[in-house]
Amino acid sequence: MPVIMVHGPKMNKEQKAELVKSFTEAASKIMNIPTQAFTILIQETERENVGVGGVLLVDRDK
Amino acid sequence: MPVIMVHGPKMNKEQKAELVKSFTEAASKIMNIPTQAFTILIQETERENVGVGGVLLVDRDK
Amino acid sequence: MPVIMVHGPKMNKEQKAELVKSFTEAASKIMNIPTQAFTILIQETERENVGVGGVLLVDRDK
Amino acid sequence: MPVIMVHGPKMNKEQKAELVKSFTEAASKIMNIPTQAFTILIQETERENVGVGGVLLVDRDK
Amino acid sequence: MPVIMVHGPKMNKEQKAELVKSFTEAASKIMNIPTQAFTILIQETERENVGVGGVLLVDRDK
Amino acid sequence: MPVIMVHGPKMNKEQKAELVKSFTEAASKIMNIPTQAFTILIQETERENVGVGGVLLVDRDK
Repeated sequence: MPVIMVHGPKMNKEQKAELVKSFTEAASKIMNIPTQAFTILIQETERENVGVGGVLLVDRDK
Repeated sequence: MPVIMVHGPKMNKEQKAELVKSFTEAASKIMNIPTQAFTILIQETERENVGVGGVLLVDRDK
Repeated sequence: MPVIMVHGPKMNKEQKAELVKSFTEAASKIMNIPTQAFTILIQETERENVGVGGVLLVDRDK
Repeated sequence: MPVIMVHGPKMNKEQKAELVKSFTEAASKIMNIPTQAFTILIQETERENVGVGGVLLVDRDK
Repeated sequence: MPVIMVHGPKMNKEQKAELVKSFTEAASKIMNIPTQAFTILIQETERENVGVGGVLLVDRDK
Repeated sequence: MPVIMVHGPKMNKEQKAELVKSFTEAASKIMNIPTQAFTILIQETERENVGVGGVLLVDRDK
């Protein structure tokens, strides 16, 4: 029943599969909860929709 | 002012309208707060962006 | 695997149980997904930590 | 390290840049934390995916 | 109906009131939406529950 | 600037430190983003505040 939300960049399917696998295995061991109980939600965020230090990523990295 | 976030599958407009109506009515009664105070946000999530038990839904249901 | 997050007032255990039951049953029917797949997270929020219309609830309702 | 999530309407890049700038500057002063430490995530939400008072925005404003 | 979530440090009531006021006023102007429509949720997070760069804040700042 | 939110059970400080370290290292490699850019927020949730399959965890595990 743990829920993990990942707000990050665009990823391809292989990256997402690897992320979900590694997060679930690590958290399962650390929390001592079976892997079946974990739900992970990935939210890919455009660089225009992220601000760091008061500046949009899309502007900062120009 | 309660806020309810729903992370689920793609839905059509009728499903969304029904979900918002039923959640708001149920929560309004249980919490004893007027329906006008409720905001519900629906976030439709691709099966490639959800992991359960360490596997992406899009891979699990193949 | 749908995940529902509820940000609302303090509730007692009976209210939480009723909320979880009614939300899960309603969403299961509307989304056509088994009830077992649903996770609901309740986050009780102090009135000092909610702002509506630019004013904290704790100040608005004085 | 504060994280601010904004669930709102579609905005153009200028609006997003202005939002990120004003939120970061205001919060930095109020919390006494350097602007560099702030991350802001913007999630633009369709009017079909928001319910207020039990009704979808897209239906309410018809 | 925009919803803003703030994950930050412990604040006193005056800081929260100021944050809610300034965020709502700024966002109302930028989005051209009345202040009454905004809900802000503040979630105060312990330094033991935040990791930056792979290290808990409570360990980093020792 | 990726942000990861973990909604899980109570953990001690060692568990949290290990979780933050392993998640950040794994995600940094998979996303090809420096570890310094990652923020992780841990939200410990009472068993009375989680529902799975329509039942509160605190009731299910009695």
